[in-house]
Amino acid sequence: MEFKALEKSGLWEALSAVGKRCYLPPGILSWSARGREEAEINATLGTARGPEKEIIAHGRDEAVTFYLPRLRNYFRELEPDDIVAYAPLAGLPQFRAAWREWTLYKLSADADKLASLMSQPVVVPGISAALFVAARLFLDEGEKFVTTDLRWENADNIFCRHLGTQIVPFALFERGKFNTQGMKEALLSISGQGEKVLLLLNLPNNPAGFSPLESEAQQIKKALAEVAEKSGKWVVVLLDDAYEGYVYEEACLRSSLFGLLTGTHPRLLVAKLDGASKELLFYGGRVGAVTFGLPQGLAEEIAPAVNSELEAKVAALARSTFSSTPRAPQALAARVLEAREDFLKERQAVIEVLKGRYLTLKEHLQHLKSSTLRPLPFNSGFFAFLNLQGIRASDFAEHLITKYKVAVIPWEGPGVNGIRIAFCAVEAESLPKVVECISEAADDLSR
Amino acid sequence: MEFKALEKSGLWEALSAVGKRCYLPPGILSWSARGREEAEINATLGTARGPEKEIIAHGRDEAVTFYLPRLRNYFRELEPDDIVAYAPLAGLPQFRAAWREWTLYKLSADADKLASLMSQPVVVPGISAALFVAARLFLDEGEKFVTTDLRWENADNIFCRHLGTQIVPFALFERGKFNTQGMKEALLSISGQGEKVLLLLNLPNNPAGFSPLESEAQQIKKALAEVAEKSGKWVVVLLDDAYEGYVYEEACLRSSLFGLLTGTHPRLLVAKLDGASKELLFYGGRVGAVTFGLPQGLAEEIAPAVNSELEAKVAALARSTFSSTPRAPQALAARVLEAREDFLKERQAVIEVLKGRYLTLKEHLQHLKSSTLRPLPFNSGFFAFLNLQGIRASDFAEHLITKYKVAVIPWEGPGVNGIRIAFCAVEAESLPKVVECISEAADDLSR
Repeated sequence: MEFKALEKSGLWEALSAVGKRCYLPPGILSWSARGREEAEINATLGTARGPEKEIIAHGRDEAVTFYLPRLRNYFRELEPDDIVAYAPLAGLPQFRAAWREWTLYKLSADADKLASLMSQPVVVPGISAALFVAARLFLDEGEKFVTTDLRWENADNIFCRHLGTQIVPFALFERGKFNTQGMKEALLSISGQGEKVLLLLNLPNNPAGFSPLESEAQQIKKALAEVAEKSGKWVVVLLDDAYEGYVYEEACLRSSLFGLLTGTHPRLLVAKLDGASKELLFYGGRVGAVTFGLPQGLAEEIAPAVNSELEAKVAALARSTFSSTPRAPQALAARVLEAREDFLKERQAVIEVLKGRYLTLKEHLQHLKSSTLRPLPFNSGFFAFLNLQGIRASDFAEHLITKYKVAVIPWEGPGVNGIRIAFCAVEAESLPKVVECISEAADDLSR
Repeated sequence: MEFKALEKSGLWEALSAVGKRCYLPPGILSWSARGREEAEINATLGTARGPEKEIIAHGRDEAVTFYLPRLRNYFRELEPDDIVAYAPLAGLPQFRAAWREWTLYKLSADADKLASLMSQPVVVPGISAALFVAARLFLDEGEKFVTTDLRWENADNIFCRHLGTQIVPFALFERGKFNTQGMKEALLSISGQGEKVLLLLNLPNNPAGFSPLESEAQQIKKALAEVAEKSGKWVVVLLDDAYEGYVYEEACLRSSLFGLLTGTHPRLLVAKLDGASKELLFYGGRVGAVTFGLPQGLAEEIAPAVNSELEAKVAALARSTFSSTPRAPQALAARVLEAREDFLKERQAVIEVLKGRYLTLKEHLQHLKSSTLRPLPFNSGFFAFLNLQGIRASDFAEHLITKYKVAVIPWEGPGVNGIRIAFCAVEAESLPKVVECISEAADDLSR
């Protein structure tokens, strides 16, 4: 993006280096806007949407952002102090307690280990804020870290454009499986630079809708321990768990790697970055959390203090960036989580709808015959991703929206060229049409 | 603060430079916590509080955070999409429009000028976030900027501890008046360092509860134009307008300096940093805004583009720090502002209560006779400030809370040593007792 008026006015010179370098790339947000305006089928959005009746008996035909009915009801019952007062900096106590319980519930296989090694969650306003704070806590400007080639574009905004750190990417897939070897090599390749190597993983992945198998997760764990051994450095793993729980295949890892990785090596620190956005279908609430999982073998008397100090660091960064997190959303999220059985039942209605869409899309993509398009494996999350060969993704998306009125998000970058289909936002009955239009668009363009 | 466990565990070495340097100073937050636990009269809080019946006919005796009844009522009426969906990155359109109208209403004397020179507000989650984004946009690490000696402690957290910029302070008061000369000299003293000088002003001031007179505001304007002339550099003024509108004396500037300063010099850029926290008594909503006021004499065809580009920069920084701002609070704030007459009436009830407390406190402070204590001039905002001579402010606050069960916030720093009384949070009938206890504590300690 150019800033010609700022330059012409001379004001450009009053900006900082960060002010000069930050810009909003014409990515998800601008394609989403086009999708809303120009498309008949809009597969760009990152929120689960559909007719209200799909998730609620006697719901309306009208498309809504899928929500938890009880969250709406609780809203009506809030007392003024839970609406207007500040929340404590590290979060509303009942929300922190509820989020901790929720995490232990999701990771019950590792609950014993986690009970002693897991920090209290520190609340921040959403996963972007969690990523920002974690990046700030561990990385210096110019420092390298490792993440997947397929990744949420806002990771680039936060880590690179804003904070000036450098991504060393590895291919998410190697022959259709999670690329553990590539991850390991990338981490070792940067192990010369300081006292730690940092890895950012987002599983289920945006944009690929992919979670590793249980067996692959075990390999990831082993590989990270090997990196710690071989490099002699700290390994810091940031887990962007935005889509945790939206998994549609039995053999996949059902929840965060956090349980598996915590306490597995004396030099492995894990930070779990959570959001209520997807987990509680509460995007606009802006509630997220940072929770640490400690290394193996810390003396019992020191572990709680390490966690307290890490929490204090996150709170200090929160205070000096955005201060406290919205109060009412925390109060609501706490109530939702406290009524866990009811909440899970309501959310299951949404997951079933998404799973139905996933199965429909998967089936139709299997029959897709095209030398231009290659669907990547997917099994979870909100999205599917198709690699494109021989044509730029943005040109493809342009053709698709112009001729077929179908909007998707093009993804381009080093080694990446494809489109993301947000099945979270498209009704199952429209998905065959989406695949058909994509197939025809590919035919048009490969002629 | 020390981080001994992190050091002992070795994890300290995995932190970034910012991660190592950030900490939460034992300031407002820890004294507030003590105030809640130990004090009978708690004059530490930064929110307007009191018995509900003070602001609502037939309200309860119970102390609450003062709120706008209609905001609570609107809460019950929100539709799911205004609760759970994401707000657009730059803010909910109806909130942005309402906030712009509100700003023009408050600054109606300059409305014509502002209509062409004022940007659209870009929404961020509260004033801390607005300060962070503005700091990031204009200042590099290590760069100097100017602000008052008496200032909100979180400015130090954001600008210094987190971002590593350096404050060149000037004394807020010179013989009981706004110290325009000191401000000017401080700005000129740093004008050698780059292409701009940056000034942060918070009026009404926290902690001093002070607003300049109309005539002093004119002098500020003149002085800033002189700095721009004399230095040949850009002058960037950040206005932290958190307490705008809470002014209890007729001769004072009634609203933000933004109206006065916008368009007054070809090299003067103003950024207005707002929060719904105090203005709408909606602390926990975390809604704030950044609005620019352009320099004088920009070509008519370029001014809108400069504003759009500045808005795009703020949005890019928002996206790469915390992404969008909570949705429901924006929807609510918009509705409150759209019913302006009713809103103003409800808020006036709160302002009247605060004004009553202000008058009570002022009267009793006038009779305070002590060589240790010197009340500073105050006329607005939520606080009053007392300078202390011959004793450390934290020792004084310690004695006051221990012996008299009265909690205040001690303020210490280069050239600053005093206590802040939050009359926003103490009922008028308790304020004479607060002054009495402070006076006795001073006697105790000067013996």
